[in-house]
Amino acid sequence: MRVLVLGGDGFCGWPTALYLSERGHDVTIADNLSRRKIDIDLEVQSLTPIRPIGERLRVWQEVSGREIGFVQLDLAEEYDRLTALLRELQPEAIVHFAEQRAAPYSMRNAAAKRYTVDNNVRATHNLLTALVDTGVDAALAHLGTMGVYGYGWSGSAPIPEGYLTVKVPTPDGELEREILHPANPGSVYHMTKTLDQLLFAFYAKNDGLRITDLHQGIVWGTQTDQTSLDERLINRFDYDGDYGTVLNRFLMQAAIGHPLTVHGTGGQTRAFIHIRDTVRCIELAITNPPENGTRVRVLNQITETHRVLELAKLVGDTMGVDIAYLPNPRREAEENDLVVRNDQFLALGLEPTTLSEGLLDECTQIAAKYKDRADLTKIIARSVWRAGMETSGDLLTELPEDES
Amino acid sequence: MRVLVLGGDGFCGWPTALYLSERGHDVTIADNLSRRKIDIDLEVQSLTPIRPIGERLRVWQEVSGREIGFVQLDLAEEYDRLTALLRELQPEAIVHFAEQRAAPYSMRNAAAKRYTVDNNVRATHNLLTALVDTGVDAALAHLGTMGVYGYGWSGSAPIPEGYLTVKVPTPDGELEREILHPANPGSVYHMTKTLDQLLFAFYAKNDGLRITDLHQGIVWGTQTDQTSLDERLINRFDYDGDYGTVLNRFLMQAAIGHPLTVHGTGGQTRAFIHIRDTVRCIELAITNPPENGTRVRVLNQITETHRVLELAKLVGDTMGVDIAYLPNPRREAEENDLVVRNDQFLALGLEPTTLSEGLLDECTQIAAKYKDRADLTKIIARSVWRAGMETSGDLLTELPEDES
Repeated sequence: MRVLVLGGDGFCGWPTALYLSERGHDVTIADNLSRRKIDIDLEVQSLTPIRPIGERLRVWQEVSGREIGFVQLDLAEEYDRLTALLRELQPEAIVHFAEQRAAPYSMRNAAAKRYTVDNNVRATHNLLTALVDTGVDAALAHLGTMGVYGYGWSGSAPIPEGYLTVKVPTPDGELEREILHPANPGSVYHMTKTLDQLLFAFYAKNDGLRITDLHQGIVWGTQTDQTSLDERLINRFDYDGDYGTVLNRFLMQAAIGHPLTVHGTGGQTRAFIHIRDTVRCIELAITNPPENGTRVRVLNQITETHRVLELAKLVGDTMGVDIAYLPNPRREAEENDLVVRNDQFLALGLEPTTLSEGLLDECTQIAAKYKDRADLTKIIARSVWRAGMETSGDLLTELPEDES
Repeated sequence: MRVLVLGGDGFCGWPTALYLSERGHDVTIADNLSRRKIDIDLEVQSLTPIRPIGERLRVWQEVSGREIGFVQLDLAEEYDRLTALLRELQPEAIVHFAEQRAAPYSMRNAAAKRYTVDNNVRATHNLLTALVDTGVDAALAHLGTMGVYGYGWSGSAPIPEGYLTVKVPTPDGELEREILHPANPGSVYHMTKTLDQLLFAFYAKNDGLRITDLHQGIVWGTQTDQTSLDERLINRFDYDGDYGTVLNRFLMQAAIGHPLTVHGTGGQTRAFIHIRDTVRCIELAITNPPENGTRVRVLNQITETHRVLELAKLVGDTMGVDIAYLPNPRREAEENDLVVRNDQFLALGLEPTTLSEGLLDECTQIAAKYKDRADLTKIIARSVWRAGMETSGDLLTELPEDES
């Protein structure tokens, strides 16, 4: 398939682009490189030494013999260039990663809140409008988040895949209705994904666009078979308080001897997926799109659930590091249970990559290899959900002596 | 109260600003005059000769002795000026009309779709962010629309005020949950109001903002006691296919001898409110705000429901004009019933102004008075919901001889 990967230079986008290319698809990346630019603003960098996109693509061609196209494009701002690209490329599938993706960053300050909403809503809406405008009938797969559902809303009922069957009382008895699961976002970032859902629902209904919304769990891991082929293809590894995801942060912290940063009680249960499964799920989604004229297909892109504290204990016990209980900057329940349906990806053939010592170890090895690139002042999360909430000071001011 | 009226130069905003000023509130209008500028783009003008905002305000002071402040401000674009205004003014209440408000315009083409989403979402989100950023604890009342609910979704059950009680099946039996009524928007415009709802829900929950969302029916009428005081205070009267609202269009069409433009069967039932009640509802809303820390208060701002064809017959029979059945440019059910709860405004003391010959006549008189300002080529609706849908040609090419 001819596949356009929007946001194909990012943490999920880059390994996805390589995987799809490896699998024989004709891949073009469009990206405004905003993730790299936000690193500049935050005065932080990926723990792994990621190469410029041009070099990445040259190395990929060298290593695989396959070419990936690249267009530097701001999806939220450059509508006319987007329609020109769609007309020229005539993609059969589009993967839409091109959104600001970090909850803590989205709560950082007014500018970050506004950027997250302005960028994410306009990026998605421009894309939908452009598909209608150009008549390009591509299968669209969008990266959503499990966070649209909230945590603990439906009691002991498993979280369904997008749609919830409810009973509505009427004077003539109860009506059964399947509704989009009520939105319960926990941050401005998560909120933008609930806005996306309503945009998708409208354009699927009014214009017959073929859309799959992937509600992804927290991604962990960093390398895939493709990004491991050459060091210059290495994927991002975010460890900072804004962009680092919880399990990767624990693994990095363990690798450098930093106490594991648990916020609140650690009783929060979340859904997880390894980056190797993310890329597989994307291919399954674009090769199994919904029909024109049907509602948005929603898939929960997760493979397992874990309580944050259990993960901290697992990593801490294995690696011999302590847990630091820090103030929780989020407004969320201290504890929740979580059962999530992911039947559709299993039916499509996904074989889940679950937590294993081997994979945890691989990730820790990478973190250890590049630990000298870490800025220890960036580890503690400092974005808070409301002004005045407490944060921790730095827990480690210099790297322990290297014993290796 | 010190009240900031965002969008206070528009069809609902202007009479609201005058009413609140008359009632003794200290009113400031902020508006980017976009509604007047869209008229320029559409090559159409209000049937009534509205005066420049500066003249309007000078006349109001002359007539009433009361001053209304004015700031030309683009809410979606000028965040820093917005926060400066909030800090300086310290409003106790804010009325938010500052959105693109026409469904047909929002479906006109890609540029209009994008403008509607970009403007409406950013305007609302900037305002919410600015309230958090500045710490201004104003009661916010926003103009939503009945269209967020869709028409016919809940069978014979009346449309509740914002929240719907449903039963959710769980392994431990049914849970009763009160949810935001599922969104069923019929146009990009209506969709933006469903996005607004999610923005409001988040900021009420995370930041304790005090928000009232007013789901208004289709407004009819043009004058209020205040706008009638001097011809230079006259309110807008939109009759064109994009911005004209259905009943006002019928009244204007009857006044000039144009067949009444019914789209489809006319079996659509819609909710209505007279502009005199709009302004009263706004005052009731801002003087009865929710508490900090409670969910968004949603009020259905409507006084009656009517089937479109019944309105056309009423006007046609009274005025002796025919009905023209035209293709329907919208994707909607041919017919629907509609029962809407509006208990909260009734409890707050609203005495509904319902359809009466006197008020219909007042509106027709105004249309007749200014009929020479009408551009007959602008009456037929030409925006369609999907490319290629049929529209009608002009039905009247010159005004009939004046018999008055």
